[in-house]
Amino acid sequence: MRRWNGWGEDNLDYPLDAKALAFLAERIGVGSPGHEISLHEVLGKVRESSWTESGFDTSAETRLRHARGQSYRDWLALKYGRIGPVADAVALPANHAEVETVLRDAASRGARVVPWGGGTSVVGHLDVIEAGQPVLNLSLERMNALLDFDPISQLARFGAGTPGPRVEAQLRDRGYLLGHFPQSYEYSTVGGWVVTRSSGQQSLRYGRIENLFAGGRLVTPRGSLSVGGIPASSAGPDLRELVLGSEGRLGILSEAVVRVRKLPEREDFHAVFFPTWDLGVEAMRHLVQSDLPLSMLRLSNETETETQLTLAGHEKAIAWLKRYLKLRGSGARPVMMVFGLTGLNREVLRSRREALTLCKLSRGVHAGRMIGQGWAKNRFKGPYLRNGLWKFGYGADTVETCINWPQATGLMRAIEQTAVDAFAADNERIHAFTHLSHVYRQGCSIYSTFVFRSAGDHDADFARWQRLKARVSEIIVAHGGTISHQHGVGTDHAPYLEAEKGALGMDLLRACARELDPAGMMNPGKLFA
Amino acid sequence: MRRWNGWGEDNLDYPLDAKALAFLAERIGVGSPGHEISLHEVLGKVRESSWTESGFDTSAETRLRHARGQSYRDWLALKYGRIGPVADAVALPANHAEVETVLRDAASRGARVVPWGGGTSVVGHLDVIEAGQPVLNLSLERMNALLDFDPISQLARFGAGTPGPRVEAQLRDRGYLLGHFPQSYEYSTVGGWVVTRSSGQQSLRYGRIENLFAGGRLVTPRGSLSVGGIPASSAGPDLRELVLGSEGRLGILSEAVVRVRKLPEREDFHAVFFPTWDLGVEAMRHLVQSDLPLSMLRLSNETETETQLTLAGHEKAIAWLKRYLKLRGSGARPVMMVFGLTGLNREVLRSRREALTLCKLSRGVHAGRMIGQGWAKNRFKGPYLRNGLWKFGYGADTVETCINWPQATGLMRAIEQTAVDAFAADNERIHAFTHLSHVYRQGCSIYSTFVFRSAGDHDADFARWQRLKARVSEIIVAHGGTISHQHGVGTDHAPYLEAEKGALGMDLLRACARELDPAGMMNPGKLFA
Repeated sequence: MRRWNGWGEDNLDYPLDAKALAFLAERIGVGSPGHEISLHEVLGKVRESSWTESGFDTSAETRLRHARGQSYRDWLALKYGRIGPVADAVALPANHAEVETVLRDAASRGARVVPWGGGTSVVGHLDVIEAGQPVLNLSLERMNALLDFDPISQLARFGAGTPGPRVEAQLRDRGYLLGHFPQSYEYSTVGGWVVTRSSGQQSLRYGRIENLFAGGRLVTPRGSLSVGGIPASSAGPDLRELVLGSEGRLGILSEAVVRVRKLPEREDFHAVFFPTWDLGVEAMRHLVQSDLPLSMLRLSNETETETQLTLAGHEKAIAWLKRYLKLRGSGARPVMMVFGLTGLNREVLRSRREALTLCKLSRGVHAGRMIGQGWAKNRFKGPYLRNGLWKFGYGADTVETCINWPQATGLMRAIEQTAVDAFAADNERIHAFTHLSHVYRQGCSIYSTFVFRSAGDHDADFARWQRLKARVSEIIVAHGGTISHQHGVGTDHAPYLEAEKGALGMDLLRACARELDPAGMMNPGKLFA
Repeated sequence: MRRWNGWGEDNLDYPLDAKALAFLAERIGVGSPGHEISLHEVLGKVRESSWTESGFDTSAETRLRHARGQSYRDWLALKYGRIGPVADAVALPANHAEVETVLRDAASRGARVVPWGGGTSVVGHLDVIEAGQPVLNLSLERMNALLDFDPISQLARFGAGTPGPRVEAQLRDRGYLLGHFPQSYEYSTVGGWVVTRSSGQQSLRYGRIENLFAGGRLVTPRGSLSVGGIPASSAGPDLRELVLGSEGRLGILSEAVVRVRKLPEREDFHAVFFPTWDLGVEAMRHLVQSDLPLSMLRLSNETETETQLTLAGHEKAIAWLKRYLKLRGSGARPVMMVFGLTGLNREVLRSRREALTLCKLSRGVHAGRMIGQGWAKNRFKGPYLRNGLWKFGYGADTVETCINWPQATGLMRAIEQTAVDAFAADNERIHAFTHLSHVYRQGCSIYSTFVFRSAGDHDADFARWQRLKARVSEIIVAHGGTISHQHGVGTDHAPYLEAEKGALGMDLLRACARELDPAGMMNPGKLFA
């Protein structure tokens, strides 16, 4: 069964080993076991539901399990039992028509509706905002089937609540794949990807969800709206692009048509080391601007490289590498790139050769496939580590952005330094490391991870995290980065959206929401107040 | 100087030769010389301007030259001198700040504003709708410079009025190109491309303007709004996508940042013949779904193949081809594909080999580079042919759409048959031919050309064209195609937009326009009433 207060299935554990604990102790100090309240105790705190209509699930446990996502704020709420407002009922419609009925019911009761896909939001999309009205969680988890498949146009229509593994399993049976692999893949859903503008780890090949989403059906308080469905059009603004990133404010996406492709013949992942960060960035940029058909490109900075190799038990590799790079006159803080190749056998082999040739121009040293294949094998395990860290008294959070190439390094360093400074105010250290994982001709994403000690107290932990989040978010928008490249806005990023969209841009978004949802019943507080 | 009532520079002529005239005479009958009123006579019909403020051009000729685009309706208006409403003045701002001033001036006079880029619209974007208020043409032609260039992020900022050749010339000096080549390239502008969602002939490599447009500045009646500028973002709906296709309804795009790339090493175009249309379509689909890095793919149907080869003087090639295909047991109506290869030498050679191997699987016969290079050389001459046709009493118009693969052939045949039927009602024949020129994994564009005789009378010509346009547009939306893949909506396609966007979708577009332009002063009647 899925954990109610952490990531993943409760029979799956990836505990920290002695080496990892020693590494953390040295970097940020020894933690004391993380606070953990029992499910039973939390259920006692869930308020009574006033919802009386039948056909909805009003049990405390169901409501609790839909009340929170996976943001660090959510994490603290669940671990400490500060559960906050919970919806009055959970609706579980089975298809588009039932979604319409639920919205009508909700409207007639003056209820507000918070949509729920896979519950993996890390930015507060699922928050219940208290405002006196009843609140309904609309869960799409029963809408998880492939509804239609067109191999000629390479299109597949899914219920919006279909999670990653079920998307790929249903396509694999037919010899196809979607190729959308966010780290939340195990639980996040096709509809959730669309309404939060998600990006998968291999977006370099398959595209962001904007490219994969061919169209869909949106149930709004004013009725249903179909968008897209045509390969390309110049007939006015593209309404698909308003649904993408709408975070429930315009209505509920009930079905999504996505662009699929045939399963690839072969997939390899390679690691390359560079003597300095700047050379690694240069190689990343040249690779993506060269049109080489790579499926994935990721560059870890000095600290992430060291952290990953240490935790993966590659100390010997590090020692060898440092020696090798020193012999070649380089510094002692190498950075690691992993690149992926996906396609026909001959393409994979050819692109490998061409990519390695380009890497060499920036003094890259090929380290073979072992590390890269290891990355691929463990690609969805990251979130499980948070469970393991907490047991030993450590919290973890991530932030991410995207910016043009010339600003990338400056912003990356500023994010890490800001995080360090935010914790230094409490005389605490923070272990901050970063990678660039989504690259474009124009620029790249920046994804930073922070590991720090828990204070052992909800309010202290929350205050520290709030300061961290605010300062880092301010630095990101001050540099001109987006407040989110792949997680969305929710409530956590909402205060920073205007810096990016402008005052008139925010007015446009509000005008769209008002048009389809005049009563303001849809996911209030997300994107904008 | 540019023609005031036809396409192109007035010293450039591509007259029809005897062979072409004989071909047309056989297909649709002999025409009688097309009506042509003099500039002098038309200027006499331009109404007086009531505009008194200085700093605007109110001369009759300037106003006439900004009053019409290149739609067939515009063509008839200019050729017969039925000029219709003309703006009261033309504003020619030199930069973003001056655009702001012009909009403020216009607002203070209660004027409506019709933006003008290169005057190449073929769907009525430039129509002046009579409604009692003064009307201002806001021409961007002075805003035609490269303002900023970032070779690291491969971004270039242009004044929105920069026409194709000036875009490419300014980039070429720096070793870069944009690669956006619509047939209107000679005059159409970067801003016009954005606000009409244009697509260039090599969009397969360079992308549609949606992909090339990184961001820009929009001057709205409520102030300026910057959109985009970040490589990718999940921070809410993408406002760039509201500006793309906004056709002046939200404001004036003053500057556009576009994604550029290094000039390619090599570019080749090849022709391949297929024994039947269905085999040609199969090959097109396999090519685009194979990830081969082609830069252009175009498939002419039987009639277009025959027309092109005849008019280009390739009768011997046709005779040879028919014989060859017959020998191989095929029918006698072959279809021609042209594909383009752009990039590094080695990539071009490799992709040629792989593309031809795929074509062979659908019984394609490679015909070398001569025909393809001829296409490339003449790629922007098409619109000039309209001048030549009119001289001999023939009109020409085109329609285009985009649809998923399974519906493409049915819709292509239906468009041509509908056109034939529309003219048969007047006992006139129409020469209709079609190509697929923009291909996607999901489907393709369909571009049909119609050549027919002029009745020698404005009202008769207009009535015939109206019937043709209406019937074909109805067929397109009835099949589920977009009302425009690359020309936009304007006034001509506005009645069909709701079929595609839905009633709620139209409400969304209107809400956006209302938000930024509460007084409804911006390009009224375009996209929606």
